[in-house]
Amino acid sequence: MKYCCYCSAELISAIPDDDNRHRYICPGCDEIHYQNPKIVAGCIPVWEDQILLCKRAIDPRLGYWTLPAGFMELEETTVEAGIRETLEEANARVDVDDLFAVFSLPQVGQVYMMFRARLVDLDFSAGVESLEVKLFKEEDIPWDELAFTTIRATLQCYFEDRRQGKFSLHTGDVIKKENGYDFTATLV
Amino acid sequence: MKYCCYCSAELISAIPDDDNRHRYICPGCDEIHYQNPKIVAGCIPVWEDQILLCKRAIDPRLGYWTLPAGFMELEETTVEAGIRETLEEANARVDVDDLFAVFSLPQVGQVYMMFRARLVDLDFSAGVESLEVKLFKEEDIPWDELAFTTIRATLQCYFEDRRQGKFSLHTGDVIKKENGYDFTATLV
Repeated sequence: MKYCCYCSAELISAIPDDDNRHRYICPGCDEIHYQNPKIVAGCIPVWEDQILLCKRAIDPRLGYWTLPAGFMELEETTVEAGIRETLEEANARVDVDDLFAVFSLPQVGQVYMMFRARLVDLDFSAGVESLEVKLFKEEDIPWDELAFTTIRATLQCYFEDRRQGKFSLHTGDVIKKENGYDFTATLV
Repeated sequence: MKYCCYCSAELISAIPDDDNRHRYICPGCDEIHYQNPKIVAGCIPVWEDQILLCKRAIDPRLGYWTLPAGFMELEETTVEAGIRETLEEANARVDVDDLFAVFSLPQVGQVYMMFRARLVDLDFSAGVESLEVKLFKEEDIPWDELAFTTIRATLQCYFEDRRQGKFSLHTGDVIKKENGYDFTATLV
């Protein structure tokens, strides 16, 4: 970020009054340009004992499998965002059950919110951001070809809860380490 | 938003390839400037049967009571954001129990995430964004002087759960109507 998006003046970096962090500030119009994390909303689409996964057609992690999820938009709710992403990436319609996972990725500036959802029918197909969309039983999940640590953790929590016969909310953090990303459950 | 924050060219509004929404696009450097909802993270700080509320010293809703909460920052987790906001607004230290409320405000572009938390001690005081900080029993909550519908809904869910003897996650949407904002619980 270099220029003010309101007046095009060159920005400076400074700590505003009554603040404790450096912000981009416009010396022209005094606007403070805050930067905040984004929400990635998605679904765990279930059909009987199977889960719908999408093979990514875009970077990052092109060719790896993921749950349908993406950046929440303005003017929608978190549930609507999860339903929309499932429709866009898998051309699949779902009924959402409840919020299953809330994972923070502090170094990436993202918070994942994943909902448990039931596929309404088997009429699904690859959206423009997917190469392939497919149902997987637990024993067939391609664990070594999953796109993101958040997706791995979500699926692990899901299958563990299913074995216990009870689903509950999972919260946790995904932290970048030397060799990749580590998931740590928090609170629950 | 009028100018590109990377190259200062004047932005145009158009639907990018493989997208379905108008975005601000830079004709100079081709950057697409996405806009996404922000997370407001906060706590329900509890001491015995009392809740800590803050009287706002800033707009909007100056002079009204709220739970400590504010915009999540980059490089922190949702829990860290709730703890930081409680420290900044009430100079209060808390131990967080669990995620209690996730409320979407689609017309405002915000998602509230409120955590149940226990005050570590009674050494609290008004931060720079608060006029006053005070513990309230349920019967003394200033329901007519609460700052936001999200805060009212959070407190109503909290006291209802406390009566039932069991706390669970609450999800819902706060929708702007003609006469103000309406809260609707979803999913749980």
